Amino acid sequence: MFPKNTWYVACTPDEIESKPLGRQICGERIAFYRGHEGKVCAVEDFCPHRGAALSLGYVDGGNLVCGYHGLVMGCDGKVVSMPMQRVAGFPCVKSYPVIERYGFIWVWPGDAAQADESLLPHLEWAESPEWAYGGGLYHINCDYRLMIDNLMDLTHETYVHTTSIGQDEIDESPVHTKVEGDTVITSRYMENIMAPPFWRAALRYNDLADDVPVDRWQISRFTPPSHILIDVGVAHAGKGGFEADPAHKAAAIVVDFITPETETSHWYFWGMARNFKPNDPELTKAIRDGQGKIFGEDLEVLEAQQRNLRANPDRRLLMLNIDTGGVQSRRILDRLVQAEQQQATAEPA
Amino acid sequence: MFPKNTWYVACTPDEIESKPLGRQICGERIAFYRGHEGKVCAVEDFCPHRGAALSLGYVDGGNLVCGYHGLVMGCDGKVVSMPMQRVAGFPCVKSYPVIERYGFIWVWPGDAAQADESLLPHLEWAESPEWAYGGGLYHINCDYRLMIDNLMDLTHETYVHTTSIGQDEIDESPVHTKVEGDTVITSRYMENIMAPPFWRAALRYNDLADDVPVDRWQISRFTPPSHILIDVGVAHAGKGGFEADPAHKAAAIVVDFITPETETSHWYFWGMARNFKPNDPELTKAIRDGQGKIFGEDLEVLEAQQRNLRANPDRRLLMLNIDTGGVQSRRILDRLVQAEQQQATAEPA
Amino acid sequence: MFPKNTWYVACTPDEIESKPLGRQICGERIAFYRGHEGKVCAVEDFCPHRGAALSLGYVDGGNLVCGYHGLVMGCDGKVVSMPMQRVAGFPCVKSYPVIERYGFIWVWPGDAAQADESLLPHLEWAESPEWAYGGGLYHINCDYRLMIDNLMDLTHETYVHTTSIGQDEIDESPVHTKVEGDTVITSRYMENIMAPPFWRAALRYNDLADDVPVDRWQISRFTPPSHILIDVGVAHAGKGGFEADPAHKAAAIVVDFITPETETSHWYFWGMARNFKPNDPELTKAIRDGQGKIFGEDLEVLEAQQRNLRANPDRRLLMLNIDTGGVQSRRILDRLVQAEQQQATAEPA
Repeated sequence: MFPKNTWYVACTPDEIESKPLGRQICGERIAFYRGHEGKVCAVEDFCPHRGAALSLGYVDGGNLVCGYHGLVMGCDGKVVSMPMQRVAGFPCVKSYPVIERYGFIWVWPGDAAQADESLLPHLEWAESPEWAYGGGLYHINCDYRLMIDNLMDLTHETYVHTTSIGQDEIDESPVHTKVEGDTVITSRYMENIMAPPFWRAALRYNDLADDVPVDRWQISRFTPPSHILIDVGVAHAGKGGFEADPAHKAAAIVVDFITPETETSHWYFWGMARNFKPNDPELTKAIRDGQGKIFGEDLEVLEAQQRNLRANPDRRLLMLNIDTGGVQSRRILDRLVQAEQQQATAEPA
Repeated sequence: MFPKNTWYVACTPDEIESKPLGRQICGERIAFYRGHEGKVCAVEDFCPHRGAALSLGYVDGGNLVCGYHGLVMGCDGKVVSMPMQRVAGFPCVKSYPVIERYGFIWVWPGDAAQADESLLPHLEWAESPEWAYGGGLYHINCDYRLMIDNLMDLTHETYVHTTSIGQDEIDESPVHTKVEGDTVITSRYMENIMAPPFWRAALRYNDLADDVPVDRWQISRFTPPSHILIDVGVAHAGKGGFEADPAHKAAAIVVDFITPETETSHWYFWGMARNFKPNDPELTKAIRDGQGKIFGEDLEVLEAQQRNLRANPDRRLLMLNIDTGGVQSRRILDRLVQAEQQQATAEPA
Repeated sequence: MFPKNTWYVACTPDEIESKPLGRQICGERIAFYRGHEGKVCAVEDFCPHRGAALSLGYVDGGNLVCGYHGLVMGCDGKVVSMPMQRVAGFPCVKSYPVIERYGFIWVWPGDAAQADESLLPHLEWAESPEWAYGGGLYHINCDYRLMIDNLMDLTHETYVHTTSIGQDEIDESPVHTKVEGDTVITSRYMENIMAPPFWRAALRYNDLADDVPVDRWQISRFTPPSHILIDVGVAHAGKGGFEADPAHKAAAIVVDFITPETETSHWYFWGMARNFKPNDPELTKAIRDGQGKIFGEDLEVLEAQQRNLRANPDRRLLMLNIDTGGVQSRRILDRLVQAEQQQATAEPA
């Protein structure tokens, strides 16, 4: 249950640096590689000769060479050549629109004819020299929508991440959700509290006192198909919170790109962008290591939840106000998937 | 194929000492934890909010707190509270009758209304200071009834446990089985033989000569649902065997509590109670280590047997006199399961 | 999809040296062991008493003793004895014709009545003192026919085995396939080329210059059910190639016995026979180690191909001239399987 006519993060450039990458996305097995002039290509991971995995091959002269019998595959899914063979009549494989931007490789796993580069979200933090970004990737065995639920309701920080970013004040503060077109925004503000360990460290990184009360905010923004960017931070109390002058706050964007692999597994690209000390790679590493540990705590919870739901498929769950962000996001996804299905039905055979 | 309206061993107290325990018993996923005033609780391992595993949470003030969003679950399966929420209308989850006794946590996985504490077996060795007990737990991928068969016919000791408790005289001695109500008793007596290694050591532990002939006994007692207690021991020959004065024998009870997890897997709580040197913890440890090794030898045999039976579902097996103990035990189980099914059918909808 | 009324390599003698071996072949679970007078036996790996795996037992006096309750199984599948039991009425299990020859144990997994020792292939290199053999065994999770395809088209050496036996000239040389009865022969000759690393070493082992042009040959011979013997080698250029005098060449036979385990997994017995320096065990070991590494490279490719084919069951593959060897071999297999099925249908009930 995922829309396919949309852009997903497929991988990061380092994953295709030394050799092709085979990755399943929205049920499509895809080989990613860097082709002519460094342009990223994505073709079905299936050699039309005998079904070998093209991703086990290598790149030669910008083309992907099948590692089994040397069939040379073009970026457009058409066979370029094969030793001793005429390939004019060889069947094509699917090729997928890809864009390399913002430090990610994005793929459009659905109908290539509908791919529209302008639909890619704009990520200012990824282009501005005033921002730094660090992140990682987890493979998680659960429906990607459970991860959306997880991120659109940060109440869980109190419980899952007790020693880092969780604190009692989170679930004591009301949460507000609003829907603007296809965007869902869930926000929570906590005023005049002490910062939890992660944010105390961030204040110190920012040369700010960490032992004084702060205002804290969490503003999750969902946009389809499954991008969630969360404004997070703390400001010294009474300085304006999220709107405070940079001199008084430590702020960042939690970046979450969630890419379905199958119906019950997904790739989770997580990271954090910050606009303080952007040229400090050691700080980037320290934050990423800390965040990786925090987000790793979600894995066990989500995979156990998936097992429980699979064992109890007919059981109805509660939908509380704190769940509104996830519920609204799923509604948008339902609508998009339904539209794709209707379009598919309407097309002439 | 297991009765559910009965007491099974669920776990040992050390397993819920530091955090809740999630364990599947008779197909029910259950969270065990120590609640108010140290009383053990057992509730369905499913948070009614979003289906998270409650066993991944923590205990606070005697209640189980869901580790995802902080729902507070009571021992009775009713939601106590949740931050910022009114929980009066929240659905309940199942709670399970539990008893902590004899060093074990016992659970009644079926209809709670029928739970009857008086049906718990009495285990004198577990309460008397004249006895010591040591044991362990194995997870085994086979139908729990294969383990019942295994224990109700100790002929296999000759073959599976050749270097410890097996000896040729076992299968050269006749076995007798009798049924008394719901109890099946299989006994074998071997007279004037040399003790095998395990029992020679036991004689020495007991300050008895280990190089003289002994009389040996094995008396397996099955009671539903799957408790098997085996009187075992050796006495210097001609002193009365099982009935001999304690001064002439080394005797013990092999303790086996077999708890189905699924139709084809179970939890095996094994141990040994002895009434000699009960205050010697090193001896307890030595015996437990030896027994753990012996019982580990059964695992491979039973799991291979399960694979063979699954691959040959229609093949009829032999039922020899040595199998009578297992056959009679299964008959009692069949009857109990059938009675549960009839009762379920007879109940008004 | 495999013929069963034929000889397959089941194992090597070292595998049954110290204890019985349980191995599934063509879907049949079989226990192999060395019985009376050292004769190899093969019986169904299923104890008729309670379904235990006989292969977990031990051999006593030439009979296989079940490790569970001591049933003694004869080489003919009839129960010999069991402690305290009359076994006359016990059911038999299947026994399988076996032959130990050429350093292998061969089994006939189908109808024992049709087993015909004369159908075993003659392997001169396995009996002559002028030849040495070294080999190994891999378990591979793919249809055994994918391995046949792999070996009947050595084009893949260029790609899969780039650092050892692969070289560009392979796929630049035409390949010829002919069918002679049930034998398929695919051959490729490369003239006046430089030898790849593996063959340069072979030339040196053979006291021949390795820095001069050579003629190279690959002649794959498939015979049912799945034996592929490949004449391979190099001769100093212009000396006659495959037909050259031994003084000018380094030649060997690549030995491949492919035994289906299930429809999608097989046992791959690989090795190399050479007729130079046959009495040099260190050379045998060096070649085997090198070959084991090379053949290990095929595993990943074949298992990924199997996953791709399973995910795309209806997709048609190409059949190029280089695939002719595999295609013709499969045709022979189809015919044999069909004949077995017709025979089974025609037999009176």
